[in-house]
Amino acid sequence: MSVVEKFAKLGTDNAPGQEGRQEVSSLQARLVGDRLEGRLVDFSHGDVDAHEPTPGSFQTFAEGVARGGAQAYTEYRGDLEIREGVAQRLAAFTGAPVDARDGLIVTPGTQGALFLAVAATVTRGDKIAIVQPDYFANRKLAEFFEAEILPVQMAYVEAKAGQAGLDLGQLEQAFRDGARVFLFSNPNNPSGVVYSAEEIARIAELAQGYGATVIVDQLYSRLRYEGVSYTHLRAADIDAENVVTIMGPSKTESLSGYRLGVAFGSRAIIARMEKLQAIVSLRAAGYSQAVLRTWFNEPEGWMNDRIAAHQAIRDDLLTVIRGTEGCFARTPQAGSYLFPKLPALTISPGDFVKALRLQAGVVVTPGTEFSPHTGDSVRLNFSQDHRAAVAAVRRMCELVERYRA
Amino acid sequence: MSVVEKFAKLGTDNAPGQEGRQEVSSLQARLVGDRLEGRLVDFSHGDVDAHEPTPGSFQTFAEGVARGGAQAYTEYRGDLEIREGVAQRLAAFTGAPVDARDGLIVTPGTQGALFLAVAATVTRGDKIAIVQPDYFANRKLAEFFEAEILPVQMAYVEAKAGQAGLDLGQLEQAFRDGARVFLFSNPNNPSGVVYSAEEIARIAELAQGYGATVIVDQLYSRLRYEGVSYTHLRAADIDAENVVTIMGPSKTESLSGYRLGVAFGSRAIIARMEKLQAIVSLRAAGYSQAVLRTWFNEPEGWMNDRIAAHQAIRDDLLTVIRGTEGCFARTPQAGSYLFPKLPALTISPGDFVKALRLQAGVVVTPGTEFSPHTGDSVRLNFSQDHRAAVAAVRRMCELVERYRA
Repeated sequence: MSVVEKFAKLGTDNAPGQEGRQEVSSLQARLVGDRLEGRLVDFSHGDVDAHEPTPGSFQTFAEGVARGGAQAYTEYRGDLEIREGVAQRLAAFTGAPVDARDGLIVTPGTQGALFLAVAATVTRGDKIAIVQPDYFANRKLAEFFEAEILPVQMAYVEAKAGQAGLDLGQLEQAFRDGARVFLFSNPNNPSGVVYSAEEIARIAELAQGYGATVIVDQLYSRLRYEGVSYTHLRAADIDAENVVTIMGPSKTESLSGYRLGVAFGSRAIIARMEKLQAIVSLRAAGYSQAVLRTWFNEPEGWMNDRIAAHQAIRDDLLTVIRGTEGCFARTPQAGSYLFPKLPALTISPGDFVKALRLQAGVVVTPGTEFSPHTGDSVRLNFSQDHRAAVAAVRRMCELVERYRA
Repeated sequence: MSVVEKFAKLGTDNAPGQEGRQEVSSLQARLVGDRLEGRLVDFSHGDVDAHEPTPGSFQTFAEGVARGGAQAYTEYRGDLEIREGVAQRLAAFTGAPVDARDGLIVTPGTQGALFLAVAATVTRGDKIAIVQPDYFANRKLAEFFEAEILPVQMAYVEAKAGQAGLDLGQLEQAFRDGARVFLFSNPNNPSGVVYSAEEIARIAELAQGYGATVIVDQLYSRLRYEGVSYTHLRAADIDAENVVTIMGPSKTESLSGYRLGVAFGSRAIIARMEKLQAIVSLRAAGYSQAVLRTWFNEPEGWMNDRIAAHQAIRDDLLTVIRGTEGCFARTPQAGSYLFPKLPALTISPGDFVKALRLQAGVVVTPGTEFSPHTGDSVRLNFSQDHRAAVAAVRRMCELVERYRA
């Protein structure tokens, strides 16, 4: 495969934040009706102006700059003292020990951690089990490293309450067929479902039985709604060297502008990730690393308020969506993604997503990014201004009516 | 090749900044004499406390944070308005147009740009011409992507004044043998030599003739000493689509803590680089991008003062090194690297580098990182406190005497 062919598979045209680069002139002629007025809402990512960064985060950054060279140039895996603080707090959060020296790496964003973790566990021809639907970069990463993807379906629409609906039989078959890495997000991106304790226990049991490595992206695992219980895979009955957990002070804390992530767990895999980071980006921005001091260290009550604000938005959006015939949305249990399934339309799902932007000032991510089977869904990051988000989803539902088949 | 084998080749034990992770107990017993007292100088990278970041850079960052979401979430290739400003200033600096929309990408550090540029131009089995000696990551990147390296020697020791000493015949042979990418740094890292106008013209001519892409790392091209003339490859007689230039406001400007780099030139390659950045790290930290507003936009006279300060350090270090029998150092024409060749010693070069750290409080990068033929040299980044650097190089020369064969 030539380098040009390799990159041809790596599309970003529909990726969140890239919409402005799309070619839309051929669609314009087929649009029906007038533009719906209202404030633009970009549901492709959270609005850090509506939900501000952790209090004190900028001050902590400024102190990092004041520290000078010691903060600018850290080990590739991040400043040791910062890693020590973070490791202790992550151990308390996840219920299993974290080795600050050898079992944790700071990366440029959670995306950075995911890239390194996949690169450090699969290479050309290796088999990797990936959930459908799941975060779109998972598939792209596997493709970039020329690994073979064994998809595992998650029937989140049909699943019983409290279950994510992962097809555990299919996961076992993937391991039996030779997959030695399983990559999934919990809560699931895009659907917002959380895996049950039983599902996590069975994933651990299967991985343990087949000697497989599990990479679990827990980016949103702090933002959990009322009544939701969460099970950390790394605290389950599984060899700790076979688990890498990925998190970051980004979405929930609105700290995305600093580009910080962490991966922790398996020492052998973290060591490989650091070797690669040395040639990919050297390290997470040194000054930004200082902001990790605020992580899991927020003012009393701050996280509860943040969760309550998001739960209120979630509930209002669900009411609007469920009031539209043929729309289905499972209630997100954690995180800030909503993944409604839309009824049949007269235009293709891809064109509907573009029409939403052009005619309603609503930016969403098409469902095809997450699974070949979810083309009839769109993803919304509802970490937005509350009123603006409700108004935008109303406009979306109005366009559903306009283009209903 | 398994993923474990692939990473076994990717060593970072001798990489700058990683020295603290080295195992040294077996060496301790073989060390001769007492520890030389003096302030620790880490020549593996510049001292941003001795040479402070660009005036106003932190203020500009703070304004970026205040801009909020618009600055936190940019296109993957970076904020368009910032790219427009940078493109204009880079065009003026390099003497050839820069397309802000399609021909420039902002990356997490220059390392990020280099990683993406190599990934976007070579894949398994492709041939890439790489200079020896040159920046150590060049070789590692080619190895990571399983490309075949065709080395091209640079005889910087023997070269005539004003010439880098690149073996242009060997470069042509590499192209003749199928290399379609040539990667080099100018000024050369580690030797500090600048390619002559004739060398650059010939590189352009050869690349043009063979339809090869040239990636030129010009990270240090602003920090040029008295009397040095510099030729930008991208302004030479060569198809602009076949050149990618890499720079960054890092070393010279002491802005490394923000992790910023740029690649500019070929639209097709930049497009591929952005696709990959989307799964590697998404984007350079949004808030950090704001700091690019200060780049090539420094207060009047500031860059001249910075250059003068470095030239004075360079000259004093050269005097100390040249006063030690059997040491050779070519005068760096640009950048802040010195690459002295040491005389024969009773301990291996690798052990001497460790001894320097343990017995003299002097951290340098071993010559083996840059070429298999430069094991008898060490690299020093002399962007340090002037007096401390001179004292440290004196201690280094004292240890050369102690271990002289």
